[in-house]
Amino acid sequence: MSKWELPLVERGEAEAAVCCSPMVREPLDEDSAVDLAKMFKALSDPVRLRLLSLIASHEGGEACVCDLTGPFDVSQPTISHHLKVLRDAGLVGSERRGTWVYYWVLPAALARLSSLLRTPADAVPAETP
Amino acid sequence: MSKWELPLVERGEAEAAVCCSPMVREPLDEDSAVDLAKMFKALSDPVRLRLLSLIASHEGGEACVCDLTGPFDVSQPTISHHLKVLRDAGLVGSERRGTWVYYWVLPAALARLSSLLRTPADAVPAETP
Repeated sequence: MSKWELPLVERGEAEAAVCCSPMVREPLDEDSAVDLAKMFKALSDPVRLRLLSLIASHEGGEACVCDLTGPFDVSQPTISHHLKVLRDAGLVGSERRGTWVYYWVLPAALARLSSLLRTPADAVPAETP
Repeated sequence: MSKWELPLVERGEAEAAVCCSPMVREPLDEDSAVDLAKMFKALSDPVRLRLLSLIASHEGGEACVCDLTGPFDVSQPTISHHLKVLRDAGLVGSERRGTWVYYWVLPAALARLSSLLRTPADAVPAETP
């Protein structure tokens, strides 16, 4: 073994011992990160967060648009814009029924975001003593 | 009762019957929404999401910065900037120990975001038949 190889190997072992904890689960892959970042971006506005929470707080996780404008100090077109951003991000669904448009949360999308926010301790409770 | 009053009352009652589902929990208040939106904004970038996931995927939810640069196609200063954004948003903590800086996830912050993403059905499982 040459002098060049020896210190490289020793340094690698020393660093591994001092600095590195093992991985206990697969981290997020690049494509999923791009998808999920778009969803989180939709949640990065206080009015949109309150809209999502307001929809989810109604029975069945569904609300009429007529219930979604009252609590806000912004115009109805602004509310409509924010609802469109939430819908385009795949966080809520919507449908017109007669006079009103209804919005509902999409639990699978919210669960996907929520699962990313779980720490390893949450993710593998069975392994905790 | 004038002709003017009658249709108004009838229309109001009809709308209430058709359009509105009751609230089953308190929606997010305005101040909390401003706080949480800042945290979600920190998560609205794919590299930051992967960094958070990578930290959380290490044993104990803690990783050495030396483990956080390899998987990315961006420069070390860019990684440092993204880690600072996550730290400033209150999502990770950090500390220098000897040669390396260590980052760990802050479970209480992640749990706060996660709880917002729970639908009423998740939130009150005891009431589900």
